[in-house]
Amino acid sequence: MAGRECGNLVVLGLGLIGGSLARALRENGFCEHIIGCGHRAPSLERALELGVIDEYTLDVDAAFRRADIFVICTPTLTASSVLERLLPQMDAAGPVVTDVASVKGSLRDTALRVAGHMPPHLVLAHPIAGSEQSGVEASRVDLFVKHRVIVTPVEGNDAAAVALVRRMWESTGAEVIDMAVDTHDAVLAATSHLPHLLAYTLVDALAGSADREEIFRCAAGGFRDFTRIASSDPIMWRDIALANRDALLEAMDDFSEHLGRLRSAVAAGDGDAMQETFTRAKQARDAFAGILAERDQ
Amino acid sequence: MAGRECGNLVVLGLGLIGGSLARALRENGFCEHIIGCGHRAPSLERALELGVIDEYTLDVDAAFRRADIFVICTPTLTASSVLERLLPQMDAAGPVVTDVASVKGSLRDTALRVAGHMPPHLVLAHPIAGSEQSGVEASRVDLFVKHRVIVTPVEGNDAAAVALVRRMWESTGAEVIDMAVDTHDAVLAATSHLPHLLAYTLVDALAGSADREEIFRCAAGGFRDFTRIASSDPIMWRDIALANRDALLEAMDDFSEHLGRLRSAVAAGDGDAMQETFTRAKQARDAFAGILAERDQ
Repeated sequence: MAGRECGNLVVLGLGLIGGSLARALRENGFCEHIIGCGHRAPSLERALELGVIDEYTLDVDAAFRRADIFVICTPTLTASSVLERLLPQMDAAGPVVTDVASVKGSLRDTALRVAGHMPPHLVLAHPIAGSEQSGVEASRVDLFVKHRVIVTPVEGNDAAAVALVRRMWESTGAEVIDMAVDTHDAVLAATSHLPHLLAYTLVDALAGSADREEIFRCAAGGFRDFTRIASSDPIMWRDIALANRDALLEAMDDFSEHLGRLRSAVAAGDGDAMQETFTRAKQARDAFAGILAERDQ
Repeated sequence: MAGRECGNLVVLGLGLIGGSLARALRENGFCEHIIGCGHRAPSLERALELGVIDEYTLDVDAAFRRADIFVICTPTLTASSVLERLLPQMDAAGPVVTDVASVKGSLRDTALRVAGHMPPHLVLAHPIAGSEQSGVEASRVDLFVKHRVIVTPVEGNDAAAVALVRRMWESTGAEVIDMAVDTHDAVLAATSHLPHLLAYTLVDALAGSADREEIFRCAAGGFRDFTRIASSDPIMWRDIALANRDALLEAMDDFSEHLGRLRSAVAAGDGDAMQETFTRAKQARDAFAGILAERDQ
């Protein structure tokens, strides 16, 4: 069809991200037909009722054979096993395969292990969007508008396949950024995976404290914001921590080293060292807030 | 005057907290007359213009002699030197003296060191309220409504003086809680002082990283909330960390021990241990969110 970028687009996994992608692409006419795929009929049925997809199937291989673009929207670890199953079927005549997982190195490694190389049509990507809500009911046509999507092309990727994935995300209103796989995983470890682990750790430590009752009774707004991400899905974050182990350990160690230095300053009553650290951090945080404010305009 | 709880109330330090307290007490008629006090005429002049106070003076000792209630609303470390100056003048005929500082043990220790005991009319307290804004311009008549104020009475305190301070805060719409001085400092270290240090540490570590540009470009909403408190005033937080050193070190060490355990689980790929920790933390955080939601209703 004129103006369409592709015929059949398959979304495997209709959660918040997959559902929102399907909604956006259905509305903007990027593709002719959207096929939902998954292993639970009731939620696919629901997606159909909500108008998120055009049809659905429980048969992953059949969906793959019909696809022009196949988007894996399952959680991180599941994405790896899906990929393992699809890799033997991928070839130049097959669909462009992409994903939305929070960790990219683990999928690249799966491809290298199973196929011996990165297939030209496998283009890894990660939309930096989400919410504490989940499921197709929470999906929104504008979830990606003004959000960043990181595409991590590798040597051997087909240029047209990479360009198609990029255009798919641009069509949803996202700002697409290219990044190396390992840089992506280090950046996400620092800005997302580590903060989640710190928030979980703090809340768990306080919940186990003798003063726990007073603690939660007296905590205020700053604490609420700081610990909001500790309400995130434990299984999703377990999987991310398993998948991004090395980058996460590096981020944790760097953080702990800085915290150790600050502890020494507190113990020594070294006000100058503290003030220097806090001032540097405030300047960086204020600059970051400035970037966000500009982006929101 | 009928219905008035006191004649002259002095607020020393007209920042966000002092200004908001003065506004609330002026509006609700708790006292007859509010005298602002400080060391900078222009900001006191501004408070007068804004209708926050009835009059002002730069003379702390003169204000003290006229006061029925004297509220020290300066930052934490300044509160200690103010107290040092006032302690020799305190007696049973003098005003009830109270404060709003974030740390209580350091002020108690100042009193014990200078006076040898806690004067009956010195009642320490801490309103758990604030914002990233500061200064009298940001002060609000309703800042304390539904917020907790912790009063930390000690042995030797005059019961009527404690009751008066409690009623003063209740009149602003706050919920007043009693707590032991050391419990207060431990609870605040856990819920406020430690989170600030963690946020400062994280942002400082990331700002010093090789990927800093990508990091701040790709960070999203979760990171914004998690690091918001790293935009707080470095000098205020330096002073709090100096004043609450021991409780803060204990909270830091407890946190680091928990983080070390989580690091071991990540390094070992121990998904069960991670899931257990994350689930416990999520339950505690969800329960806390429930408390806050109830309170907001």
